[in-house]
Formats: sequence, C-alpha cells, structure tokens
Amino acid sequence: MRLRNKPWAKEKIASYPQYIIPQPEQYKGRWHELFANDHPIHIEIGTGKGRFITEMAKMHPHINYIGIELYESVIVCALDKLIENDLPNLRLLNVNAKELTNIFAKGEVERIYLNFSDPWPKKRHEKRRLTYRSFLELYENILVDEGEIHFKTDNRGLFEYSLVSFSQYGLVLQYVSLDLHRSDFEGNVMTEYEQKFSEKGNPIYRCEVKYRKPMS
Amino acid sequence: MRLRNKPWAKEKIASYPQYIIPQPEQYKGRWHELFANDHPIHIEIGTGKGRFITEMAKMHPHINYIGIELYESVIVCALDKLIENDLPNLRLLNVNAKELTNIFAKGEVERIYLNFSDPWPKKRHEKRRLTYRSFLELYENILVDEGEIHFKTDNRGLFEYSLVSFSQYGLVLQYVSLDLHRSDFEGNVMTEYEQKFSEKGNPIYRCEVKYRKPMS
Ligand SMILES: C[S@@+](CC[C@H](N)C(=O)[O-])C[C@H]1O[C@@H](n2cnc3c(N)ncnc32)[C@H](O)[C@@H]1O
Ligand SMILES: C[S@@+](CC[C@H](N)C(=O)[O-])C[C@H]1O[C@@H](n2cnc3c(N)ncnc32)[C@H](O)[C@@H]1O
Repeated sequence: MRLRNKPWAKEKIASYPQYIIPQPEQYKGRWHELFANDHPIHIEIGTGKGRFITEMAKMHPHINYIGIELYESVIVCALDKLIENDLPNLRLLNVNAKELTNIFAKGEVERIYLNFSDPWPKKRHEKRRLTYRSFLELYENILVDEGEIHFKTDNRGLFEYSLVSFSQYGLVLQYVSLDLHRSDFEGNVMTEYEQKFSEKGNPIYRCEVKYRKPMS
Repeated sequence: MRLRNKPWAKEKIASYPQYIIPQPEQYKGRWHELFANDHPIHIEIGTGKGRFITEMAKMHPHINYIGIELYESVIVCALDKLIENDLPNLRLLNVNAKELTNIFAKGEVERIYLNFSDPWPKKRHEKRRLTYRSFLELYENILVDEGEIHFKTDNRGLFEYSLVSFSQYGLVLQYVSLDLHRSDFEGNVMTEYEQKFSEKGNPIYRCEVKYRKPMS
C-alpha cells in the first residue's frame, strides 16, 4: 500500500481509543467483555482502508469484527468510516499480525479474513506472505477448532501459492472460486483493492479453508 | 466427445490386440510382465484421440503408459498413432474407468493423468465426474502409497469442484497453475482438447495432488 506521510495519523489514532484499541494485549482471553456479548469474533488481517470490515459489520450485527492494520497512515481511513458509522460490533487494531497470539487466546476467534494480502512475489520473501506456514500456525493458535480462513485476491501467483500452502499445512478446502464476480457466490463485499483490480478486468480468486479437528 | 458412427472401429480394435489389450483383467497384478520391465506405470483416463499419451511415451521411454478410453470410435484415433509409432512403452485399453480395480492391483500404478475430463456441470450428474469421491477411492485402490493425480482442464467449474473434492478426500496439493500456458511449468504436452480450447483464449488450469501416506 502506498504510504503518504501523515504525521497527524498517530495523534488521531490516539484520540479514538474506543475505536482503535491501545494495548490490545490487555484483552487477551477477554474480548467478549469488550464487546459485552458472546457473539462470534471474526478478524480481518490487513484491513487497509476498511471498507470490507465496515460493510460486514453493518450487514452482520451479531458478529463482532476486529480489523487489524499495520500502517497508521492507512488505518486512519478505516477509523474515519468507523467514526461515521459508530458500529458497536467493530473495533480496529493498529498492530502487526505477528503479534496475534499475544492479543488473542486459543479459541477466541472463529474466522479470519485475508483480503488482497501483499503478494511478496519474490521467493526470498515467501515468509512474509500472510499464507506462509508460520502464519497458518499463528492463526491456528487463536482460532476455535475447525476455524476458518476466507481469502481473496486478484494475484494469481499468491493464490496458487496459498492453495498449496493451505493444503500442505493440512487445511481443508471448503469452497473455491476462480472468478468470483462471475460466480454464484452471494453477499460479496468488495474491498478497495478488489474494486480497483476488478475494474481492470482481472478475475478475483476466493477460497474458504478450514482447520482439521485436532486428533483426540 | 462427439461420436461419429464408426462400425468398423470394433473390428479394427480387435485386429490390434498387441496395442489395445483385450480382456485386460488377465493382467491384474502382472502388468510388468506385459511390458517386460519394472518401470513405473502411469495411466491416463479418458485418453481421447491419444496425442498426450503418445507424446509422453516418446518423451519418457523409462515410464510405461496405459491410455484408457471408453469409446471405440475415439480410441481408434489413439490406435492409429500407436501403429504409426510402435512404442514398446504404450498400451491402450478400451474400457470404462469404473473397471479400474478389476484391471490393476493395489500399488501397480504410480500416477494417473486426467486431461479435460467431461465436466458434467449439472449437480445431479456429480457422481459421473472423474474427480468425484468414489473415483478418488477407486484410484487409491490401484495407486502406490503417495500416488499422484495430475489433472488439467479449461473448465472452471470442474476445476473448482475438483480442488474441493481432492481436499475433502484428504489429498495434498503439490502444484497448481491457474493459467498453465502463461506459467513457468516446463514440458507440457498439449492434448487435442487443450489445443482447441486454448486457441479460444481460455486459461488452462492444472494441478498435481498426492495421496497421503496411510497411517500405520
Ligand atoms: C494490498 S493491501 C489490501 C488492503 C485491503 N484488504 C483491501 O483489499 O483493499 C494489504 C494491507 O495489509 C497490510 N498488512 C500487510 N502485512 C501486515 C501485517 N503483518 N500486519 C498487519 N497488516 C498488514 C498492509 O499495510 C496493507 O494495508
Ligand atoms: C472431453 S474428452 C478429452 C479427451 C482428451 N483427454 C483430450 O484432452 O483431448 C474426455 C474423454 O474421456 C472419455 N471418458 C469419459 N468417461 C470415461 C470413463 N468412465 N472411462 C473411460 N473413458 C472415459 C470420453 O469418452 C472422452 O473421450
């Protein structure tokens, strides 16, 4: 994501602690207290400007959403949408996905969304891809048993890589579309990147995978 | 595949028993005797007019190939190619894939190729798709442990279905390309259908999957 210099971003983030939670580690194991209900928690990693998670939160009031975005200059756009809509079931975190297991306890999250994750096309950057096996392990450590990842991208190389990575990690494919906008999938919410890349005519790839039940 | 009426086909097939093996059940467990060597056996199901398997047999003399095709009127074209090339490592079978376990013993086959299998797009015909779970079970019963299926098609619906079917059966994805002709895959041999459909500009989808090692 192109970074414009936004020195005021840090300050703005700090002034909305009810929306962008400072020190989220303090909620580990108690996110349901923050939302004051026990609805399922779905998180999006790499939320960007936040259209997807804001629309999802509006459409599904009985799901709690948490959007995670590393860059201050980007998450402020998601913050603006949240200020405008004041959704009780949406919160944002300005953290690196690597911190997930410090923030959520095992079983606290039901579903993870990855939308148009950075492709890192060079083989030597493989470990940075959000579908690399070390991330799949992190996700497993915060998800419920048989928790799900819903992934979409227009990047063919990243999608091919991710299907193999999921399978080799032992995840089970529940659904796949190789041209989402010409499929019968209903209820799709477009992200900012999706809008931009589908306008160029690129097919959008999407899949849902599920962790296997642990052997007992 | 369009069927032209070829009453002479049956007769022609019968007159080349050295190429299109009659009563292949008699070789169950002893295919290596027929080839007079112990090279690995790779089979193609739905060989059609036989270009793929003939070219593969020429390129890989240390692999034994068996092409399986249901329709007499189609397999005669593959037969013509075999007559012309007289390849010691290629044989054809004019049988239904449903018969596989009557023809091969467990562990006799190392790899199965499925190329441009009939898509059977209607949900009520799902069981006819060569990647339906009952076929995956048949294949498992003739393949070596960790045997492979290499599958390609231009049919998006069939490819999406098959990725899910493979995964839910427990197969592990080793390789996937969502646009074979614009990928770095080397050594691709085009089938008759592949030539026809790629000329129309359709992307060709391809994957390799592997059976899991059985638990001991
Ligand atoms: C290509 S953008 C896509 C944004 C949005 N999901 C969309 O589809 O419009 C990827 C986003 O992921 C964020 N990101 C990348 N790695 C991250 C990480 N380790 N933790 C949190 N966010 C990350 C980037 O800052 C960027 O905003
Ligand atoms: C669409 S054609 C593709 C032919 C060839 N593989 C190609 O790519 O050009 C599918 C072929 O599979 C054959 N076939 C379909 N079901 C079969 C079965 N159960 N057993 C053997 N052959 C079958 C059909 O007769 C047909 O020739």
